[in-house]
Amino acid sequence: MSESVNRQWLLVNRPVGLPQASDFEYREVDIPEPGEGEVLLQILYALMDPAQRGWMDAGGNYWDPSPLGEPMRSGILAQVVKSNSDQHPVGQFVMGVGGWQDFVVVPEGTVDPIAYDESQDLRAFSHALGSKGATAYFGLFDVCSLKDGEQVLVSSAAGAVGSLVVQLAKIKGCRVVGIAGGPEKCAWVIDELGADAVIDYRAHDDMTAAIAEHFPSGLDVYFDNVGGEILEAAMDNLGIGARIAICGMISGYNESAIPGPKNMWNLLVKRARIEGFLVADYGPRYHEAQAEIGEWIDQGKIKYKIDERKGFDILPETINCLFEGNHDGRLMVKLRDDDNGPA
Amino acid sequence: MSESVNRQWLLVNRPVGLPQASDFEYREVDIPEPGEGEVLLQILYALMDPAQRGWMDAGGNYWDPSPLGEPMRSGILAQVVKSNSDQHPVGQFVMGVGGWQDFVVVPEGTVDPIAYDESQDLRAFSHALGSKGATAYFGLFDVCSLKDGEQVLVSSAAGAVGSLVVQLAKIKGCRVVGIAGGPEKCAWVIDELGADAVIDYRAHDDMTAAIAEHFPSGLDVYFDNVGGEILEAAMDNLGIGARIAICGMISGYNESAIPGPKNMWNLLVKRARIEGFLVADYGPRYHEAQAEIGEWIDQGKIKYKIDERKGFDILPETINCLFEGNHDGRLMVKLRDDDNGPA
Repeated sequence: MSESVNRQWLLVNRPVGLPQASDFEYREVDIPEPGEGEVLLQILYALMDPAQRGWMDAGGNYWDPSPLGEPMRSGILAQVVKSNSDQHPVGQFVMGVGGWQDFVVVPEGTVDPIAYDESQDLRAFSHALGSKGATAYFGLFDVCSLKDGEQVLVSSAAGAVGSLVVQLAKIKGCRVVGIAGGPEKCAWVIDELGADAVIDYRAHDDMTAAIAEHFPSGLDVYFDNVGGEILEAAMDNLGIGARIAICGMISGYNESAIPGPKNMWNLLVKRARIEGFLVADYGPRYHEAQAEIGEWIDQGKIKYKIDERKGFDILPETINCLFEGNHDGRLMVKLRDDDNGPA
Repeated sequence: MSESVNRQWLLVNRPVGLPQASDFEYREVDIPEPGEGEVLLQILYALMDPAQRGWMDAGGNYWDPSPLGEPMRSGILAQVVKSNSDQHPVGQFVMGVGGWQDFVVVPEGTVDPIAYDESQDLRAFSHALGSKGATAYFGLFDVCSLKDGEQVLVSSAAGAVGSLVVQLAKIKGCRVVGIAGGPEKCAWVIDELGADAVIDYRAHDDMTAAIAEHFPSGLDVYFDNVGGEILEAAMDNLGIGARIAICGMISGYNESAIPGPKNMWNLLVKRARIEGFLVADYGPRYHEAQAEIGEWIDQGKIKYKIDERKGFDILPETINCLFEGNHDGRLMVKLRDDDNGPA
């Protein structure tokens, strides 16, 4: 820890639509000192999550807003550099919620220690071994009650959660169709993730018809990462007793009024279910997902893709890549633009 | 059985929007004779159901369309008047699916015998002791997994299903708020059904705010009989882990494109669920509902309201009362305009 300054990107405006450069302000402050029962973390990676767009709003969301004039709230991978807590020795790796800054002081017990050793990829704990893995795992097996051999549709299939959903459903012997944007991502979904088919939404005006081609008798499970028109198109293609898990709504984050699906009627006709879930509710059961997914990673059955960007400066502009489909895997920013550090 | 003619109302056009007089045609034909294994039924009551509007469409619905040029398909209460079946002796009362006509021949086993004795109200078997009771019962206890003491909202609370939902939820110690149209119905929901509160949707422009007043911390269960704007308003008022059962969508039956709820996002935020169901799927378990509801009727805990109209002539015009909110309880037409017969 040779740095003497704490760089920060403050949230200074609540954006309407996509966040702009003017919604953030750069500042340098002193590195804070941990008090009794507190630890000082050096933030190694800032994780880019759609939920952050919600936190930029004034409220009404499922978390308190990220306060104006403070570092933009963000998921982080970090290391303990000073400690006044027995729970967190110096050198421990943790994940949790921090902000867009190099250093942060947190009370003990408010971040989760990571069982990381140097043979591993630290970044996996923000992906398949972390909340992304748990989201795919509990969304599919718990919310959707996935049964072996069912017909599964996954949107954002090349995304962090979606790519895991595809692979988990394949492990369970399901027929899996992914939705992704552009030929490269689509090829990856088939060739690397093992989906049975893929739909390039950029190449189809009529997503209802595109989905119908792959599910002539309707789908059993739709894992929804996007909401909006693709959700509506999926709802046009429900099989009897279909289940939809709503995991994210990228297409809704940046619009104040989103037209809802016009075909709610289909839920009745098909005796189908839509359920929203937040992976945070499964916190006490994360270890179940971590254990099983960890085994599948060791067996080579699960791959994950990290889209790592480097440099503190690019934080504000990088978040928009989430909403513009302009990223390729789990998006994160390594705050120091060098090759040092654990990953 | 002194009649010598079989009156019929044929469906001759597939309506757009509300059915018109010109969509039906009156005809008189001979009374048919039952063949081997068949019975001749005299239809006593034609039941008016929202599903019939779906059957008037060309297809895509959860039942085959009602064929053009044949009597409009309808739920019926009937009596066996000629029988070539041991299962159905002459004089037996049955319910099932028939049409807008005085007589119909059906194969044995395609209608359900009713355990009716003269101390009872035959019409109850089309209401609390029939599919309406089963709809309320399984929708509330099975689809919504209602727990004792929860906060429940019911639309069409003065309707056949809704009025039973209110009473079942009260029996389970829930706090129940009904939605109904007009002061008379609203008074009935409170005074007779025992709801804790009622919202007159005709008296409120802003249903979201009207519902919020009664559920400051959100609702646990919404039993949806109408869809459309009221569904959207209910979705603005979800508590954590809320469940919505979609039982009917009156507001959608007569429109080709219904705007969907703009707030699907709330399902995610509130970890909430919407599920459609068809009571027909619970056929093998009807007896469970019938037994328990029968006891509650005997104990005076459940009331039901029949809106009986009389006369064969009024069949086509009466169906629209369902969609115009212009009826008061379970709507049915007694085909013979007299006071004879079992009820």
